[in-house]
Amino acid sequence: MAKKVLLVGGVAGGASAAARLRRLDETAEIIMFERDQHISFANCGLPYYIGQNIKERSKLLVQTPQSMQERFTIDVRIHSEVTSINPDRKTVTVNSKDKGIYEESYDYLVLSPGAKAIRPPIPGIDSDKIFTLRNIPDTDTIKSFIEKQEVEQAVVIGGGFIGVEMAENLKDRGLEVTLVEAAPHILPPFDTDMAVIVEKELEDNNVKLLLNDGVKSFEDKGSTIEVILNSGKLLTADTVILAIGVTPDTMFLKNSGIELGVKGHILVNEKLETSCPGVYAVGDAIEVVDFVTKQNVAIPLAGPANKQGRIAADNIAGLTSTYKGTQGTSILKVFSLTAASTGSNERTLKRLTIPYKVIYVHPVSHASYYPGALPLSLKLIFNEKGIILGAQAVGSDGVDKRIDVIATVIRLKGKVSDLAELELCYAPPFSSAKDPVNMAGYVAENVLAGRVETFTYEELENYNKEETQLVDVRTEFEFENGHLEGAINVPVDKLRQKLDNLDKNKPILAYCQVGLRGYIASRILTQHGFNVKNMTGGYKSASALRF
Amino acid sequence: MAKKVLLVGGVAGGASAAARLRRLDETAEIIMFERDQHISFANCGLPYYIGQNIKERSKLLVQTPQSMQERFTIDVRIHSEVTSINPDRKTVTVNSKDKGIYEESYDYLVLSPGAKAIRPPIPGIDSDKIFTLRNIPDTDTIKSFIEKQEVEQAVVIGGGFIGVEMAENLKDRGLEVTLVEAAPHILPPFDTDMAVIVEKELEDNNVKLLLNDGVKSFEDKGSTIEVILNSGKLLTADTVILAIGVTPDTMFLKNSGIELGVKGHILVNEKLETSCPGVYAVGDAIEVVDFVTKQNVAIPLAGPANKQGRIAADNIAGLTSTYKGTQGTSILKVFSLTAASTGSNERTLKRLTIPYKVIYVHPVSHASYYPGALPLSLKLIFNEKGIILGAQAVGSDGVDKRIDVIATVIRLKGKVSDLAELELCYAPPFSSAKDPVNMAGYVAENVLAGRVETFTYEELENYNKEETQLVDVRTEFEFENGHLEGAINVPVDKLRQKLDNLDKNKPILAYCQVGLRGYIASRILTQHGFNVKNMTGGYKSASALRF
Ligand SMILES: Cc1cc2nc3c(=O)[nH]c(=O)nc-3n(C[C@H](O)[C@H](O)[C@H](O)COP(=O)(O)OP(=O)(O)OC[C@H]3O[C@@H](n4cnc5c(N)ncnc54)[C@H](O)[C@@H]3O)c2cc1C
Ligand SMILES: Cc1cc2nc3c(=O)[nH]c(=O)nc-3n(C[C@H](O)[C@H](O)[C@H](O)COP(=O)(O)OP(=O)(O)OC[C@H]3O[C@@H](n4cnc5c(N)ncnc54)[C@H](O)[C@@H]3O)c2cc1C
Ligand SMILES: CC(C)(COP(=O)(O)OP(=O)(O)OC[C@H]1O[C@@H](n2cnc3c(N)ncnc32)[C@H](O)[C@@H]1OP(=O)(O)O)[C@@H](O)C(=O)NCCC(=O)NCCS
Ligand SMILES: CC(C)(COP(=O)(O)OP(=O)(O)OC[C@H]1O[C@@H](n2cnc3c(N)ncnc32)[C@H](O)[C@@H]1OP(=O)(O)O)[C@@H](O)C(=O)NCCC(=O)NCCS
Repeated sequence: MAKKVLLVGGVAGGASAAARLRRLDETAEIIMFERDQHISFANCGLPYYIGQNIKERSKLLVQTPQSMQERFTIDVRIHSEVTSINPDRKTVTVNSKDKGIYEESYDYLVLSPGAKAIRPPIPGIDSDKIFTLRNIPDTDTIKSFIEKQEVEQAVVIGGGFIGVEMAENLKDRGLEVTLVEAAPHILPPFDTDMAVIVEKELEDNNVKLLLNDGVKSFEDKGSTIEVILNSGKLLTADTVILAIGVTPDTMFLKNSGIELGVKGHILVNEKLETSCPGVYAVGDAIEVVDFVTKQNVAIPLAGPANKQGRIAADNIAGLTSTYKGTQGTSILKVFSLTAASTGSNERTLKRLTIPYKVIYVHPVSHASYYPGALPLSLKLIFNEKGIILGAQAVGSDGVDKRIDVIATVIRLKGKVSDLAELELCYAPPFSSAKDPVNMAGYVAENVLAGRVETFTYEELENYNKEETQLVDVRTEFEFENGHLEGAINVPVDKLRQKLDNLDKNKPILAYCQVGLRGYIASRILTQHGFNVKNMTGGYKSASALRF
Repeated sequence: MAKKVLLVGGVAGGASAAARLRRLDETAEIIMFERDQHISFANCGLPYYIGQNIKERSKLLVQTPQSMQERFTIDVRIHSEVTSINPDRKTVTVNSKDKGIYEESYDYLVLSPGAKAIRPPIPGIDSDKIFTLRNIPDTDTIKSFIEKQEVEQAVVIGGGFIGVEMAENLKDRGLEVTLVEAAPHILPPFDTDMAVIVEKELEDNNVKLLLNDGVKSFEDKGSTIEVILNSGKLLTADTVILAIGVTPDTMFLKNSGIELGVKGHILVNEKLETSCPGVYAVGDAIEVVDFVTKQNVAIPLAGPANKQGRIAADNIAGLTSTYKGTQGTSILKVFSLTAASTGSNERTLKRLTIPYKVIYVHPVSHASYYPGALPLSLKLIFNEKGIILGAQAVGSDGVDKRIDVIATVIRLKGKVSDLAELELCYAPPFSSAKDPVNMAGYVAENVLAGRVETFTYEELENYNKEETQLVDVRTEFEFENGHLEGAINVPVDKLRQKLDNLDKNKPILAYCQVGLRGYIASRILTQHGFNVKNMTGGYKSASALRF
């Protein structure tokens, strides 16, 4: 007999599951419930439509109820909120704008209700000048408010991906924008050393940044709104965009018997089946296994949501398909910069007390002699077995490519030695004979093999100035243009002649601009009997942190 | 005792080996012999310097003898040709411009003499208007000839990478350029279906293409040169660039006892050691193992040369380091297009009678609703176990990234199911929630699982028109704008209503624009009891081939 499959939510996870299911099973009865008017829209494009980078609203609508009906014979029911699910009776209760309240039975059920923007009970939060962004109605509201009210000043609360994208897009429209972040730095997937580069880019583009400061209250002043921060600072604006994170939209499951996690996420197994047989769940609403740390986490991203939808459909259609976890590979355009990351960052690994090592390289995007080569900073995190735990990169070109390659190696459980061996595309307009990814592999291999000991700029804070020699191995010219306090200058190319100037009984901390010459100096010094460490990432990484 | 290591050739492989060796071993005596004046130059940048895309000649010189001396205490001996090696005595014979002929002894020897341009004994080949391009002197000669003789018309012989790069760069200088290729299509790493896209780009940029036609003879006419082709065609030009391939520069090893391959390449083991103990060889001069087919091949590329140099140095320094083969990952800019490939192509697999399957996808470089999304054509070749054998892509943006990711999966011995699962960077400016690489993985998985049977446009040539229904499932509008001969039009979105129009007893060959709707139509038809195949790559792949 034909299966009857219901879906809750008709966008990334839900629509993907429905389409795949139809391709696998022509006879199934498929009904998709969507609370809103729109299904299958481009959530990720919303900020860019507000910023007028995407000009046509219609472009945001990837599929319509009609096109899903025509192509996939999906019975799409919009304005239909599923208010509860009743696994005992195998039904859901629907509150439909047109049809009122009714029950619909299922053989299989796919939950993809997504997540909603957090709106904490801060005094004044109910002002109609404060917006969150999740869907098309939110987008229409924000856009028309900006246009009708001729908004000139905006405050964005929250320095996550959506907050930063909104800051950029509002700036693109000519608004004055202040971005407020309660944490010490923006962009939680990135460690401080990488986040600061993005922060500089925001400031260089006249986005005012207020870090380490949360919102105490809002005050609607009629024509403007005031944002009062914990520090006491007061910001005045025409509008506030609240982008401080999301929470799973799973209230309707409260009494369903379906197991939820501590924060309300739906718990699923490898097949994406919930604790109720026949009920699958995907997307922003579920807890997933972190591919690297194996911890349960929530990672609300479109790629995973789409893939999970496809996997749920597979299982319903009788195929065996499993979801092996989420790495959190993510990317962000910030004016002329790109920031991307995959796997775990230092913050996460420290919290979980997972030991790791870090290296940096600062190569250029392609052969330096070919026009348009732009610098990028690449950070690689790995363990003592060479397993890659994570990577982060920031730069103007080729960042996505390098993180995609490393994400691939992580997924295939490769090691830093694999990075060194990868044979990637090389011609001058695209890369270097040793791609930045190869280079990161070499540097990491050298650390693991003990060919060089490294230290980070952060570790320099606690060093013993009396007992250590801090040696800048760059040229005299570079040294004079700025160096670390307390450093002496011995250029690498003169090092062999100047060994006598250094004390064999005092450990040497060496550094150069990016780490390469410091490494060469370390190799020379080590082999001449010195005890030496090289600062990974060099002065460039240090400078980013000192910004 | 300190090792004495000699290197023959001071560019990609040789200089890389020397630098790495010094980092590993501060005490070794390292002498590098280079026949020419220049070491460590950017071979790959030469066409772009001739084309004035790279403006400064000095940028081509990555390292100089002096800088190699200062940083790495390498004794660089330029204008010093190694004329023979004498493994019995462990010496090499050197012919030095300054010092005359002498012998130098070694403990270890690294051979990286590279390859030289082929100059076959065609009548008239000795004209001083015919140039090959390998090194800085060649570059200087070509550039000054073009400038001094005010060259307006050039003929490039050979449609390999260097030939195409030269054609583009001469065009960039405003020359009239004709590219002559003896094979039916340019760019041997690419199959016909991909090469034709590049050929179109060349023609669109007014490079005249003559395919399937070789050179019979040249005639120097004083102020011009005539190129007479096998077809009888006669071309008149001011200069000829000969770029028909390279041959290993290993004549000096003829009587050395070192084993050479049939075409004169040096044979090495996994450690890159030749048949003579202590003698290593790397770069364009060696035969390598094809990573995919395991055959011995010659793949003259800079990435492998650099990596091999490092591995040879490792082994000399006592580390265990092996070279696991070359995939032939390569890339080319052709005006606004990029063409890249990795692994084996169909031609190679057919020659070796290795069974394979092929699929195409034609996605856009990033989310289609975000400005600047550009089409790309991606071809994936895999075997019945899902092992990826090769991939080729052509497009204007994001081609390098997708081939790099697939090259990584090949290197880590991943399968098409891994492509489907990869978690790659997604935000609208960079990709789609299902990256083109994921999409290729899905399509390949469906083929392997038998969810869809596919055929290629080439296979359509032999189909039985009487016994088959060729069905175009695109919209009526698309159909009217051009379709395959003999096709009937049943748009996918109306297919379920029109099943009666089709004959269940005749196999159906379905196609759409890129393969997606054809796949959906195939799924519908299969499940309604039809016998159906979908044309992979769709009308777009077919149109490329019909161009
Ligand atoms: C502004 C913005 C930008 C983003 N940018 C990116 C990006 O660049 N890259 C990236 O990877 N991810 C991005 N995301 C995240 C991505 O959009 C989500 O991860 C993805 O859409 C999650 O898919 P989902 O199916 O779980 O939920 P959604 O796509 O949100 O769909 C859930 C749907 O379910 C409906 N629904 C909820 N409850 C019910 C109910 N009880 N009954 C009926 N219907 C219900 C909702 O109305 C909603 O339409 C962005 C998100 C936003 C908001
Ligand atoms: C125009 C051009 C463009 C290219 N573009 C690309 C590209 O985009 N991507 C890519 O991957 N590859 C490219 N290549 C190929 C790449 O440059 C080679 O693969 C690489 O340089 C090979 O390194 P090698 O050390 O083996 O040889 P080489 O770099 O050629 O060095 C060999 C050196 O040895 C010297 N020598 C030879 N015999 C002797 C002897 N008996 N005694 C002393 N010295 C000797 C030669 O003078 C030469 O300088 C390009 C090559 C050329 C010519
Ligand atoms: C569009 C949407 C309805 C999903 O539809 P979908 O049909 O699964 O996805 P696509 O249109 O990308 O097509 C993918 C299918 O086509 C197949 N396909 C793609 N190109 C093909 C080709 N050239 N030849 C053959 N098959 C092809 C794939 O194999 C896949 O089929 P499968 O899953 O059965 O293997 C859903 O993803 C959606 O609503 N997206 C918008 C919302 C969203 O994702 N938001 C977040 C990001 S902004
Ligand atoms: C430049 C050349 C001499 C090689 O020199 P090299 O020192 O081996 O190469 P690089 O300058 O790229 O440096 C790589 C080394 O620096 C290290 N390194 C790079 N960045 C680093 C960083 N940020 N921190 C620490 N170490 C770093 C790498 O680990 C590697 O050392 P290892 O091999 O000991 O592991 C040689 O490649 C050459 O002659 N190139 C030009 C010719 C050529 O390649 N032509 C073809 C392409 S156009």
